[in-house]
Amino acid sequence: MPDKNALALGLDFGTESVRALLVDLDGAERGAASAKYRHGQITQTLPGRDEPLPADYALQHPEDWLEAAAKAVRRALRQSAGAGQRIIGIGVDFTSCTMLPALRDGTPLCLLPEFHENPLAWPKLWKHHGAKKQTERINRIARERDEDFLKQYGGKVGLEWFFPKMLETLEEAPEIYHAAEVWVEAGDWLVWRLVGCAADEMARSTCQAGYKGMWSARDGFPSKPFLRALHPDVVDVVKAKMPGRMMSPGQSAGGLSAQSAKSFGLAAGVPVSTAIIDAHAGVPGVGAADPGILVMVCGTSSCHMLNAAEYRYVPGVAGVVSDGILPGMYGYETGQAAVGDAFDWLRRLTGKRTFAKLADDAARLEPGAEGALCVDWFNGCRTPLMDGNLRGALSGLTLSHGPEHLYRALLEASAFGLRWIVEMLREHGVPVKKFIATGGLPHHNPLFVEVYADVLGESILIHPSQQGPALGAAVLGAIAAGKRAGGFSSVRSAVRTMGGVKKGVPAREGRLIAPNRRNTRAYEPIYRRYRETASFLNGERSRE
Amino acid sequence: MPDKNALALGLDFGTESVRALLVDLDGAERGAASAKYRHGQITQTLPGRDEPLPADYALQHPEDWLEAAAKAVRRALRQSAGAGQRIIGIGVDFTSCTMLPALRDGTPLCLLPEFHENPLAWPKLWKHHGAKKQTERINRIARERDEDFLKQYGGKVGLEWFFPKMLETLEEAPEIYHAAEVWVEAGDWLVWRLVGCAADEMARSTCQAGYKGMWSARDGFPSKPFLRALHPDVVDVVKAKMPGRMMSPGQSAGGLSAQSAKSFGLAAGVPVSTAIIDAHAGVPGVGAADPGILVMVCGTSSCHMLNAAEYRYVPGVAGVVSDGILPGMYGYETGQAAVGDAFDWLRRLTGKRTFAKLADDAARLEPGAEGALCVDWFNGCRTPLMDGNLRGALSGLTLSHGPEHLYRALLEASAFGLRWIVEMLREHGVPVKKFIATGGLPHHNPLFVEVYADVLGESILIHPSQQGPALGAAVLGAIAAGKRAGGFSSVRSAVRTMGGVKKGVPAREGRLIAPNRRNTRAYEPIYRRYRETASFLNGERSRE
Repeated sequence: MPDKNALALGLDFGTESVRALLVDLDGAERGAASAKYRHGQITQTLPGRDEPLPADYALQHPEDWLEAAAKAVRRALRQSAGAGQRIIGIGVDFTSCTMLPALRDGTPLCLLPEFHENPLAWPKLWKHHGAKKQTERINRIARERDEDFLKQYGGKVGLEWFFPKMLETLEEAPEIYHAAEVWVEAGDWLVWRLVGCAADEMARSTCQAGYKGMWSARDGFPSKPFLRALHPDVVDVVKAKMPGRMMSPGQSAGGLSAQSAKSFGLAAGVPVSTAIIDAHAGVPGVGAADPGILVMVCGTSSCHMLNAAEYRYVPGVAGVVSDGILPGMYGYETGQAAVGDAFDWLRRLTGKRTFAKLADDAARLEPGAEGALCVDWFNGCRTPLMDGNLRGALSGLTLSHGPEHLYRALLEASAFGLRWIVEMLREHGVPVKKFIATGGLPHHNPLFVEVYADVLGESILIHPSQQGPALGAAVLGAIAAGKRAGGFSSVRSAVRTMGGVKKGVPAREGRLIAPNRRNTRAYEPIYRRYRETASFLNGERSRE
Repeated sequence: MPDKNALALGLDFGTESVRALLVDLDGAERGAASAKYRHGQITQTLPGRDEPLPADYALQHPEDWLEAAAKAVRRALRQSAGAGQRIIGIGVDFTSCTMLPALRDGTPLCLLPEFHENPLAWPKLWKHHGAKKQTERINRIARERDEDFLKQYGGKVGLEWFFPKMLETLEEAPEIYHAAEVWVEAGDWLVWRLVGCAADEMARSTCQAGYKGMWSARDGFPSKPFLRALHPDVVDVVKAKMPGRMMSPGQSAGGLSAQSAKSFGLAAGVPVSTAIIDAHAGVPGVGAADPGILVMVCGTSSCHMLNAAEYRYVPGVAGVVSDGILPGMYGYETGQAAVGDAFDWLRRLTGKRTFAKLADDAARLEPGAEGALCVDWFNGCRTPLMDGNLRGALSGLTLSHGPEHLYRALLEASAFGLRWIVEMLREHGVPVKKFIATGGLPHHNPLFVEVYADVLGESILIHPSQQGPALGAAVLGAIAAGKRAGGFSSVRSAVRTMGGVKKGVPAREGRLIAPNRRNTRAYEPIYRRYRETASFLNGERSRE
């Protein structure tokens, strides 16, 4: 029986802000706060500079992460008496692949005066799309060499991953590549800073490496011959510039350093879990301890996570990693690159200040938005086409369409995108039995979940926690603490106890959105139009 | 030599307003004013009613036309001393096919209390798209019967034409059809009201009938067997409900009635020319007396008029009418259904109040709008596909696109649409040698003409008169007056003298916009993408 007084802290590093969540070992929330990153997404100019960044750049400031996290943790602690001393474990989830070059002492290269003005010295946010050329080369060479790791990724390495981003810097700014002593995922870097260990001792997340770094437990990182074929300068990069120990989320990366403990207002030595990708943290966060549950983590983009008992090759699935999400199962990662981001794009495009009226008006329209059809590739297509260069479209437009038609078309397109993913999984023998939605979007946008349920023809459970990933991170913190420190004896019991829905407990009871069968039928021909249009746009791209 | 003191009055009835233009017989402007229609385009609800109109309805109020015209004429007259008494002829151009049911005394049916609340008793504006079903039937039956008139229209009768609109009323509101004693084009109705003659004496414009009424000088209106095949109730409609004499624009329809003279502040008895379609009036208006000059009349929609010495069958050309625009030549009418209308749609969609910033920002973008591509079928495709059910599209969209990208893409799409038309004409042996732009858009939107010139790779003359069609109507007024009343002895001399550009006279000198060759080359692949996307959308529509 876990300690009634014990708390776990989850730190959920998103695209715009970090969230700190305090929960007891029953999973009940005891404190929560979030803090925005001072510089947010850096897409126009570097801080204090005037030169415009290229259109496909998206960077972040590494100090923002620690500063915002300290602020959020201190606010959350104030909500529960003596919380700072009751925490038995800390978990960290992070966007991925967000990565940076650093020195062996942990200093990010962009903080050195000599590199401060070079955009490629800065952390690249997951959505940074500067590595198009490099991604194409990696895929071509991997196909030519018939690399095993391709099977793990539906046959394609993604534009947003670790090696493409690293190779981009080598080719666009070789002085940065060579000055970097350490190339590291931002989540691993953050945990490294929290525990304050030596570079060789840092915990590298098997989740981040498995999904974004072409790493597998069997084969490790890509082979030297493959790396040599990519570029002679990277042949030794794994040994020379990627120090650390490969560890699973939930394994302790070490105890909180005295310095971190001071800045966060916590006790030194508390175990910190190895990092997990933010979306993947949603799976323990919603209590999905069993196979066949699609956990939809919906925010600026969406990640759809699924555990399955067996491995199946599914073309276009972003990653299948053994023990990648939870031990003993194959974790399937699929995703949609622009969801909340696309809705926000439309909101800004139409000069609206809030979504309220847009959503009201869109809700009054019938399925199909009076002929307006959208293909949701405003940031490329992640699953199933894995092509960051694909582009979005709106068709069926007439002069009588207003912002609400386009907004509804965007919502529907997003749901069609998920339907396509679910069909792909099922067609290839991966069971998908239940749907749980988490993240901010399902809570703030009821129409979003209704349209999804109608298009899929499936019920969707909205998990009561708006902090699915943060809760998942806290669960991992409790696992890292282990039974001895008052935590759990098994991962499964931790996930079920802390993440599960509790019937009859209002704050813990999920909301089940059932599909409207009439709408489901109405969406059939519209979904076919979506697929036809998507097929045309994909063909157009490949004809270029 | 024409009378130096004489004036001609042109009345240009557009979609939103009427313009009155006073010119001397040298074509110099002596007064101009416009007045908006009180009810504008009636697309949401009938005046004073709450029931929403169907989405594809566009109606007008007949009293608006006369009321606004009287206001505009009185204002224009005040700008030239004694003008009211110096006018020797009046010309009228009108949107087409705008049409209405009336009694034999000229009363529009919608003004009768018993029909006032029935939308189908109201004048249908050219862009009213309620007759989809009827258009399809007319085309099917015409093809089955291999009707000769199809050749005149590129093989297809348009959704916006006279017989489809009449048939729509018969089938949707038979009581209106049967109560109508007269079915008439709005331009003919207006002239009929001005001269105040009996129904049997009214001048029916060969231009309007030739382009929008399946009429030709050789065969007249469609035959009884064809009409019987359409619907037994319309077999006698031409004889029973379409009274009047077929007359060409420039022929006098009669003298201004005492009542009209009084309300307009003019002298009774002044000859009034038979009506012409607004866009077609642009040809005499810009002095295009010779073959091979494409006159682009650009406003909410665009009509592109061209005279040629010979008849050629060109698929999808909206109409080829012998003497349809000017005597002795074949008049080719082509068009684009949404131009200014589409730009305004985007302006409203993006919540902008004016075009100024949108145009500034769009002008700074390179050809291709950073990948954003538009197909300009927001109101269907007129030439070359003649399908009012086609729909617009925007593709190549990313989260970094703003209103200015979409606006530029719309401008480019509009230019691509014209390039397609020009290619069609040339491929079928119709020479296109020069380009003259008129209408409000080319004057108010310099970027519009630049993009057109670049996409076409041709110089475009912006005619100095912002009132191309109004000037053309005035030219027709001077022709109707004839030599005896101080007008002209030949149509060609009237067109050249009054409509032509005058070098060295600032207010009469056109502006020639030459293409930028670098941009022309840049547009090549983008135009191909436009055609491919158009082809997909057209195929999608036909697969429905």
